[in-house]
Amino acid sequence: MKYCSACGHPVDLKIPDNDDRERFTCTQCNLIHYSNPKIIVGCLPVFQGRVLLCKRAIEPRRGKWTLPAGFMENNETTSQGAERETWEEARARVSNLSLYYLFDVPGISQVYLFYLCSLIDGHYGVGPESLETALFSESEIPWDELAFPVVAETLRSYFEDTKAGKGYPMRVDTVVRKPRNV
Amino acid sequence: MKYCSACGHPVDLKIPDNDDRERFTCTQCNLIHYSNPKIIVGCLPVFQGRVLLCKRAIEPRRGKWTLPAGFMENNETTSQGAERETWEEARARVSNLSLYYLFDVPGISQVYLFYLCSLIDGHYGVGPESLETALFSESEIPWDELAFPVVAETLRSYFEDTKAGKGYPMRVDTVVRKPRNV
Repeated sequence: MKYCSACGHPVDLKIPDNDDRERFTCTQCNLIHYSNPKIIVGCLPVFQGRVLLCKRAIEPRRGKWTLPAGFMENNETTSQGAERETWEEARARVSNLSLYYLFDVPGISQVYLFYLCSLIDGHYGVGPESLETALFSESEIPWDELAFPVVAETLRSYFEDTKAGKGYPMRVDTVVRKPRNV
Repeated sequence: MKYCSACGHPVDLKIPDNDDRERFTCTQCNLIHYSNPKIIVGCLPVFQGRVLLCKRAIEPRRGKWTLPAGFMENNETTSQGAERETWEEARARVSNLSLYYLFDVPGISQVYLFYLCSLIDGHYGVGPESLETALFSESEIPWDELAFPVVAETLRSYFEDTKAGKGYPMRVDTVVRKPRNV
C-alpha cells in the first residue's frame, strides 16, 4: 500500500495512538488502513464414501488436486461461501453441511474452514477454475498430487474418522510452515 | 474506496474478466482491490464456574458488557488472537482454549470465533478499552446490559451446556439481523 484509498495521498507506516503496531496511515487525511486475515471456505463433499476433488486449472498449484474452496466473499455466511465455491469449481450442489476443520495459517494470514457435506445425487461437473473433477475412495486419492497441506490433512482426518466410526468431531489445527510456492 | 492504494489513481467499480461481481479496479494500473469478511476472535474465560466480562470503554456499545474479543491481526492464529484480546481488554491470561462458537454475521461481513477457556489463577485487571471487568455467575450476568447478540447467545449456550453436563460441543450459528447501531 502506497496511497490512501479514500483521498489518494501517500500513506506512511506508523503506530496510531492507543495502538501497539504499525498501520498504513494517510499523511493527508490521517485515515488508518487496517489489514486483517482472510478466510478461505471450502467443502469436503462425500458421495457413497468417495470424496469430490478438483484438479486446479489456475495458479498456484495448477494441475494439482484440491477440495473445492476459495476466498469468502462479503455478505455471505461461511457455509454459503463453501457451497458457492463448490458450485463454481465442481458444478456440484451439497447438503448437510457440518463444520469439520479450521486451519490457522498465520504465515500467510489466512484461516481455512472446511465443511463436511453430502454431494446431492452424486452429480458434479467441471467449473472454469478446474481442469477435471472426480470422486475418489481413500485408496484412489492422488496423495502425492494434492495442492495444499490443508487438503491432505482434511482428507486424512476424514478417512480416519470414518474408520473410527464415532462421527466427525470438529478439528482445529495450525499450519506452521508457509505452503510451497509454485 | 476512491483511489488505488498501489498507484494513487481513481478506481472504478467493474466486474473483472472471469469474475461474477463488481470489484474496485484501478483505472490506470488495472489492479483489482478485493474486499473480504473480517474475523473477530474472543474468549469465554471461566474461573470456578463464573465467566469474565468487560464493560466497554469504547464505541460501539460503550458502557455495555462483552466478552473479551476484537479483530484478528495478521500473522497470528485465531486462538493467539483470542488470547491477545483477553490480555488487552481484561489483563487476563487463559489456558485450555477450545473453539466453542462460530457466528456468521453476513450483514456486516464478519465472522466471530469464541474460544472457551480457563482463566489462569482467577487473575484479571482492566485494559484500556474496558471501564471495568468482573466475574459473573449465571444469575449475576447483566443480561439486559450485554453489548452484542453474539455475546448473549454464547453465554446462554455455555450455561445450558454446563447444566446438561455433556461437554461443550462446538456450535455454528448465523446472526441474521444487523446489530443495532449506537
